[in-house]
Amino acid sequence: MTNLAHTDSTHEPSLRSWIDSANDPETDFPIQNLPFGVFRVAGTDQRPRIGVAIGECVLDLHRCATEGLLGSVEPEPCCALSATTLNDFLALGRPAWRATRAAVSDLLSASGSRRSDVQALGESILLKRADAELLLPARIGDYTDFYASIHHATNVGSMFRPQNPLLPNYKHLPVGYHGRASSIVISGTPVRRPYGQTMAEGQPGPVYGPCRLLDYELEMGFFVGPANQRGRPVGMATASDHIFGLAIVNDWSARDIQKWEYQPLGPFCAKNFATTISPWVVTLEALEPYRNAGPRRGDDDPPLLEYLQPVQEMGYDITVEAYLSSKRMRDEGMQPLRLSRGTLADMYWTIAQMLVHHTSTGCNLAPGDLLATGTISGKAQTTRGCLLELTWRGEKPLTLPDGTKRSFLDDGDEVIMRAWCHREGAARIGFGECRGIVLPAE
Amino acid sequence: MTNLAHTDSTHEPSLRSWIDSANDPETDFPIQNLPFGVFRVAGTDQRPRIGVAIGECVLDLHRCATEGLLGSVEPEPCCALSATTLNDFLALGRPAWRATRAAVSDLLSASGSRRSDVQALGESILLKRADAELLLPARIGDYTDFYASIHHATNVGSMFRPQNPLLPNYKHLPVGYHGRASSIVISGTPVRRPYGQTMAEGQPGPVYGPCRLLDYELEMGFFVGPANQRGRPVGMATASDHIFGLAIVNDWSARDIQKWEYQPLGPFCAKNFATTISPWVVTLEALEPYRNAGPRRGDDDPPLLEYLQPVQEMGYDITVEAYLSSKRMRDEGMQPLRLSRGTLADMYWTIAQMLVHHTSTGCNLAPGDLLATGTISGKAQTTRGCLLELTWRGEKPLTLPDGTKRSFLDDGDEVIMRAWCHREGAARIGFGECRGIVLPAE
Repeated sequence: MTNLAHTDSTHEPSLRSWIDSANDPETDFPIQNLPFGVFRVAGTDQRPRIGVAIGECVLDLHRCATEGLLGSVEPEPCCALSATTLNDFLALGRPAWRATRAAVSDLLSASGSRRSDVQALGESILLKRADAELLLPARIGDYTDFYASIHHATNVGSMFRPQNPLLPNYKHLPVGYHGRASSIVISGTPVRRPYGQTMAEGQPGPVYGPCRLLDYELEMGFFVGPANQRGRPVGMATASDHIFGLAIVNDWSARDIQKWEYQPLGPFCAKNFATTISPWVVTLEALEPYRNAGPRRGDDDPPLLEYLQPVQEMGYDITVEAYLSSKRMRDEGMQPLRLSRGTLADMYWTIAQMLVHHTSTGCNLAPGDLLATGTISGKAQTTRGCLLELTWRGEKPLTLPDGTKRSFLDDGDEVIMRAWCHREGAARIGFGECRGIVLPAE
Repeated sequence: MTNLAHTDSTHEPSLRSWIDSANDPETDFPIQNLPFGVFRVAGTDQRPRIGVAIGECVLDLHRCATEGLLGSVEPEPCCALSATTLNDFLALGRPAWRATRAAVSDLLSASGSRRSDVQALGESILLKRADAELLLPARIGDYTDFYASIHHATNVGSMFRPQNPLLPNYKHLPVGYHGRASSIVISGTPVRRPYGQTMAEGQPGPVYGPCRLLDYELEMGFFVGPANQRGRPVGMATASDHIFGLAIVNDWSARDIQKWEYQPLGPFCAKNFATTISPWVVTLEALEPYRNAGPRRGDDDPPLLEYLQPVQEMGYDITVEAYLSSKRMRDEGMQPLRLSRGTLADMYWTIAQMLVHHTSTGCNLAPGDLLATGTISGKAQTTRGCLLELTWRGEKPLTLPDGTKRSFLDDGDEVIMRAWCHREGAARIGFGECRGIVLPAE
């Protein structure tokens, strides 16, 4: 196990960048963050490149590597940083990630030794973020979605199974299921309202037609680093070695399709038409100041089996928000409406427990795999991470600033998700945005 | 839609190969079959190559392409056949698959025009199958498993939900779920008994320990050819254009783990430790003589929604068998015991309906994706495709030739699956074998 409790000068709240926008106290991407992503110059066919977000800019790591600017970084990570996805870099593990972070921090620091080398290369190495088209950060081999919010599981369970909302296994293992990797898209990709098979109550048979109950789910996802061998479960002591960092996930859900199809084998077509992720992967290194003990199990909760017992703190206090903006609101210049604000700290299971349980029968994870938390909902109404819960299955519609009501998503609606960490005495660490506009069925 | 009802001289039952072993009436791989796979010379680090099985041999298609032996095949398929997996070739679609099949048939035919060119290259282009190490035929991006046998669904349902064995959606849509792509392994790979979390009846809490109820599931899987765009469902008329061919699938299942974890989101760790597939992909072209109208819906069955209504015959009459051999049986030279013999014709849904429903909400399939049928069980006891059904959850153990009994799999047991098509007036088309030995938990 590499010790996660590792803070160095890259975390120092007083550290400033020579890039002004990175010193804005409101920025998601100060020099203490340095999230990784993949981009190309917008409007070109350029080969995708790995970059780091800094203030309003993107630092081109491929260029940094070829210009010899990552001095202390070994040749292997430098080579991995010249790939078109993060997969090779993810495979290298924490020592390489930390060395790269330190080198990038030095390049961007106001007091850094190589600041002038970057400045000399100008826009060819440091783009404006607005000039970058952001792409999926990794080739996602397998995608898994968990169900780690006990509040979400209880709310949804009480709608679908009033007598039996929380199933007996829930407090013993992080329930999860395999999702669809091919339909994961990057923030900004429009999502077309799907057709699908549904069975309306009181009807004699199902119909195939446009989804009527389209929903989002506000989640976080984490990218897997080094693989484990098939047949070799990962233990809690080394779980964090396999976790590179986190991004925002919108697990679009067709509720009417889901309700009809999901038994007995789980969600399938109701989820596999699109899953949107935010482009910047925020590393566990950047999140170190926000790490904590994680969820406290209640006195009435059953004891945890040993293989899931925490051996280091693996909770992260990340605030997550969902906003909605109708087409009319955008046309009339209204601000998006915040629908919820929750926190990853409200989850019943940590990301380490999810990863460990995933491998508990020997499943092999690979660099670039994405594991998502499931909808992040807390106890309070304002913390509920999907419309199904917020409108209680449509029974209590929301009113938008344009005067219209919403039980579920309308065509033209844009869902915007944000996530960030902030507290006194530490730099704000943000995740950027995860956006998607609903196109009409066709 | 390319017309599937296409028979040409490559199907002619009287066609003979100049390779003697291909003319054995018992062979799985006569010249009418020509299944595709990926191999390397056993015991070497050779770059994987695409090959075709013929009798007891493997024809090296990379070598055929570079030697200019695939005369009438366009440059693009020739290039795709030099790759290390079938994915690029799968992406090309039926016209390229057919042209390649015709060219290979000509090379191997006793009366073929280029027979001497192949013979001149000897073992450098035509290996003994025993000298080839077989590899996964494709890079499987996503793996999906269906539940298409109504007999299996009813049997299993009646064990887990006695009051409610067959759920209301079953006859309206092919129920399926996303599986784990990373843990798919090739026939012959040993499978270690997994550890996992289980809850025994009458116990106060769950335990984490070796699986006690390890099972196999006898299935067929099919490989996807050309992709569909995300958001664009595939219709029944063009479904076959997206299907390259079939292989045998063993969906290893940890029943005790499955029972505890599967609600509400479906099987997860109980299935993701290993799935074994047979190495040779038998094309729809080779199976053409065995194509039929597919399952007949009963008079009491509800009408099918239009998007799932057959527009061409997409049933395949493939016999599937499962055999078991204990370590003692192997040590004492006993033959494996046949546990079941069923047929794909007994399924409630066709592979075309599975593919169409999978894309019904717009899910994008990609070349190399694997879709499996779920356990193939018929009505009769002898056709049941897993031990859970054969021993009725362990209540009626089987007796093996070595005198021992089996409710579920023991360490050292080898599961062997075979599949083949045969009838008067057509060549036998076989799938080879799908094998795996159970190693003890450790």
